[in-house]
Amino acid sequence: MPKGEKLYEGKAKVLYKGTEPGTIVQYFKDDATAFNAQKKGTIAGKGIINNKVTELVMHNLERIGIPTHFIERLSDREQLVREVEIVPLEVIVRNVVAGTMAKRLGMEEGIRLERPLVEFSLKDDALGDPLIAEEHILSLDLADEDELSEIFDMTHQINDFLRGMFAGIGIELIDFKLEFGRLYEEDEVSYSLILADEFSPDNCRLWDLKTGEKMDKDRFRRDLGGEVEAYQEVARRLGISLETEE
Amino acid sequence: MPKGEKLYEGKAKVLYKGTEPGTIVQYFKDDATAFNAQKKGTIAGKGIINNKVTELVMHNLERIGIPTHFIERLSDREQLVREVEIVPLEVIVRNVVAGTMAKRLGMEEGIRLERPLVEFSLKDDALGDPLIAEEHILSLDLADEDELSEIFDMTHQINDFLRGMFAGIGIELIDFKLEFGRLYEEDEVSYSLILADEFSPDNCRLWDLKTGEKMDKDRFRRDLGGEVEAYQEVARRLGISLETEE
Repeated sequence: MPKGEKLYEGKAKVLYKGTEPGTIVQYFKDDATAFNAQKKGTIAGKGIINNKVTELVMHNLERIGIPTHFIERLSDREQLVREVEIVPLEVIVRNVVAGTMAKRLGMEEGIRLERPLVEFSLKDDALGDPLIAEEHILSLDLADEDELSEIFDMTHQINDFLRGMFAGIGIELIDFKLEFGRLYEEDEVSYSLILADEFSPDNCRLWDLKTGEKMDKDRFRRDLGGEVEAYQEVARRLGISLETEE
Repeated sequence: MPKGEKLYEGKAKVLYKGTEPGTIVQYFKDDATAFNAQKKGTIAGKGIINNKVTELVMHNLERIGIPTHFIERLSDREQLVREVEIVPLEVIVRNVVAGTMAKRLGMEEGIRLERPLVEFSLKDDALGDPLIAEEHILSLDLADEDELSEIFDMTHQINDFLRGMFAGIGIELIDFKLEFGRLYEEDEVSYSLILADEFSPDNCRLWDLKTGEKMDKDRFRRDLGGEVEAYQEVARRLGISLETEE
C-alpha cells in the first residue's frame, strides 16, 4: 500500500505518514517484546491478527459512540488512522488482579476487584512506563481535569462494552491498556479527545471463561507456549477471517 | 421443584412463593402475547430458553457489579429469585429506533440514535404501560431522585455490557426493557435497588449484525414466522445448551 515516510518504529508497530494530510498508517509487526523489551521474539501472524482485532474493536466502539482515530484497514498488516497528539499516558483498566499489579502489591493473580480499577502510567519506555497518580498528571500538566474526567468516562464505557463482547465469546477480559489522543481542528487550537493506538491480545489479558486458560501475550511473556494458537483462537471466536493476502 | 403458593400469573411467567422466606420462584411459560395481550399464541420451548438466557445475563451482570434478584436456576423453566418491591416502571433502553418509538414519533425503524435513550413507562397492563417522563415519576412519587439516578447509571452500564455481549455473537441489541426492585433489609426500612424480572428475547429486540434479520419476539408480533428457530439461534450463539429435562 502506498504510504509516506517512516515516522516511528515501536516494539510491535511501525508508523508511516499517510498519503492524505492528517493521516498515519499503522503497520503491525509480528515482533513481540516483554518486560520493557528485555525479552524479544516473534509470534507468527500476530501482526495480521492484531490489525484485524483492532479494526473490529474500534469499529464496535464507534458504534456505541466512542470516537476513535481509526479510519480503515488498508491491508493485512496496515490500517489508516487519524493523526493525533498522543496524551502521554498509558490508561490501564483492571477487572481482575494480574501482572504488574499482583507483583507490586503482593496480591494473588485472579482476585476479582470490587470495582474496575483505572491506573495511569507515564508513557515513557526509557523509564519503564512508571505508575503515576491523578495528582502527578495534573501537577505535571500531562492532561487537565476535564480531559481526565473524559478519559475516565470513556474508559469505563469501553470496559463495560468489551467485557460484554468477550463474555459473549466465552472469554474474561482481565485487564487492558488504552491510549488517547487529541485530534486538533483546522484552527490548531480546538481539539477533541479520541481513542488511539490499538486494542489487541498484545495489550490485554484474556482468560478463557471455562478453563481459565490464558489467551494473550502472557503465553509469550511467561514461556507458556501456544501463543500463535491463542491469538488465532481469539480471532476465530471474534469471527475474524484469518485468510491473508501474504 | 417444590414451591409455595401461586402469587401471580402474568403473560409469560407465573410467580410462586419460594420455600425459603424472602424468595420467589419464577416459572417461564411458552405463552406469547403482543400488543398488550390483544394477540395471543405460544412459542414452543420459549420458556426454557428465556429461563436460561435470563440466568446467563443475570450471572454476567453480577460479575460486572450489577446487583440482581437472581439466586439460581432450579429447573428447565424455574428460577429462584429474591423477593423485592418492584419499582412500578418499565425502563426501556433504545440504541436504534424501532417498535412503539418509531410508531409514536413517526420515525423509520433502524435509525441509530445519537446516544442511547432511556424511556420510562408506568407498569400498568390495564393502561397499556403508558409512557411517562421523569417529572411524572417524581411528582407521582413512583421513585425518588436518588433512585432515578441509580437506575440511570445501572441501566447505561447494563446497556454497554449487553451491547458488547451481543456484538460478540454477531447480534445488534436494538432495545430492551428492564425492571428494578427494592430489596429490603431485616429492619424493613433500609433497602437497595437491584435488577429484577428477566432478560430474554421476549423483552428486547435483537437483529443479526450481518443480515439484519430479527431474532426476537417481533417474529411473533409481526407474523414473520420462524420464532422458535430465532429463539433457539440466540440461545445457541450464547452457548446455552437446549437439552431439556422435559
